[in-house]
Amino acid sequence: MQKYFIAPEQFGEQHIQITGSDAHHIVNVMRAKPGATVIVSDGASREAKAMIERCENGAVEARIVELLAADREPAVLVSVAQSLPKGDKMELIIQKCTEIGAARFIPFVSERTIVQYDQKKEAKRLERWGKIAKEAAEQSHRNRVPAIDSTVSWKALTEHYSEYDLVLLCYEDEVGTLLRDVLEPFHRTFHSKAQQSQQEARILVIIGPEGGFSLREVEAAVEAGARCVSLGRRILRAETAGMAACTCIMYQFGELGGV
Amino acid sequence: MQKYFIAPEQFGEQHIQITGSDAHHIVNVMRAKPGATVIVSDGASREAKAMIERCENGAVEARIVELLAADREPAVLVSVAQSLPKGDKMELIIQKCTEIGAARFIPFVSERTIVQYDQKKEAKRLERWGKIAKEAAEQSHRNRVPAIDSTVSWKALTEHYSEYDLVLLCYEDEVGTLLRDVLEPFHRTFHSKAQQSQQEARILVIIGPEGGFSLREVEAAVEAGARCVSLGRRILRAETAGMAACTCIMYQFGELGGV
Repeated sequence: MQKYFIAPEQFGEQHIQITGSDAHHIVNVMRAKPGATVIVSDGASREAKAMIERCENGAVEARIVELLAADREPAVLVSVAQSLPKGDKMELIIQKCTEIGAARFIPFVSERTIVQYDQKKEAKRLERWGKIAKEAAEQSHRNRVPAIDSTVSWKALTEHYSEYDLVLLCYEDEVGTLLRDVLEPFHRTFHSKAQQSQQEARILVIIGPEGGFSLREVEAAVEAGARCVSLGRRILRAETAGMAACTCIMYQFGELGGV
Repeated sequence: MQKYFIAPEQFGEQHIQITGSDAHHIVNVMRAKPGATVIVSDGASREAKAMIERCENGAVEARIVELLAADREPAVLVSVAQSLPKGDKMELIIQKCTEIGAARFIPFVSERTIVQYDQKKEAKRLERWGKIAKEAAEQSHRNRVPAIDSTVSWKALTEHYSEYDLVLLCYEDEVGTLLRDVLEPFHRTFHSKAQQSQQEARILVIIGPEGGFSLREVEAAVEAGARCVSLGRRILRAETAGMAACTCIMYQFGELGGV
């Protein structure tokens, strides 16, 4: 069943209203008729199965037939900080990491970022990325749409490390410390603490540009508290590293085919 | 440094020759001049750093300056059986799973495969997929290029289960058994056995089409020895499931950021 995120004010007691591109999707792509059911979410606590009653003037009205309580959000909040990659790779990263379970995306510019950052295009780009995150969250039946931050500098990113319980810098030249060397003990320690506090682990994963990080950047990151980790002996493309790291974290935390 | 796979007969004692599209890539894309170095591999045991001496008539000649012994192949052989997906998604699956470390791809047709399988296009498609696997293996500095099988039927796939130590069917409707429930004990048992035999674990991962498997297909697979596993609470797109499963297996076996 297709899922749609709607604004909280469109989520009534017994009826819900779907407008905009989602209504277009229901009517013209899914070709749904009155009587068909969809899943709707307000992106926070409410989720329901609803039966379509009317499709008129670009809006779809549906009646709630069942309130759902399925929580499909992982118990670990993974933020993916990604140096702006070439072409439309950021779209692939956002789509795939949203399915896998990422909570937030932070694009950044570092020394070797190839793409010329264009402030004027920022609003349009954020809108497009937000749309991709929303669609991927709907498709994978998530309860929340990941947030997408404005592009920041390497320095600004560093200043936000303190908001996280763990900061992982995926570094091609790291050989001593593998991702699991850090992730496993962190998970163990956090898990035993979390049983008292019910808090979700907040992890920041940092992925560099095609040309990697400069030594100066790595030193500054470590100084600020980041842990350098290797993703193994095969060199992953910039857009693959984020998906792989996200997947490993979810697996370690029992959130992707794990317990 | 860019890596190229060359035919064994082009890999001499002191010199190597690069022809075809790889020579074109060196001359016209990398714009390499005599004196530049590349990494070459015969796709089996030999790998070397070589310095370009001549670029003439579409061929590049280089002198071996250092024999390399880097083994970047995982100690687990993961074959990805993928129901033919729509559009060019198979290309993304092959590219990403090759980077992650897959050993082999087996496209198949099952009941709900949406794509119309066209036997006449098979040769062309295999050539294209092979090229993508080769480029991804070069990019990620692997020692081997994954094999890509011809498209098989669901039944034919089932008959090959016995070639593997473990067959995992990623099944959307599976709720009881998560991937890790099967993978962790398998890894533990295999690991202790492998210390005597030095053998690599052979795992087949089966990923269904966009519409999933029919109950009949699942029953036949289980009957033939497959283990149904869930990839968790978020529904992954057909092309994401393979990458995620491959990543989890590599992580579990200490082959992707693990030990």
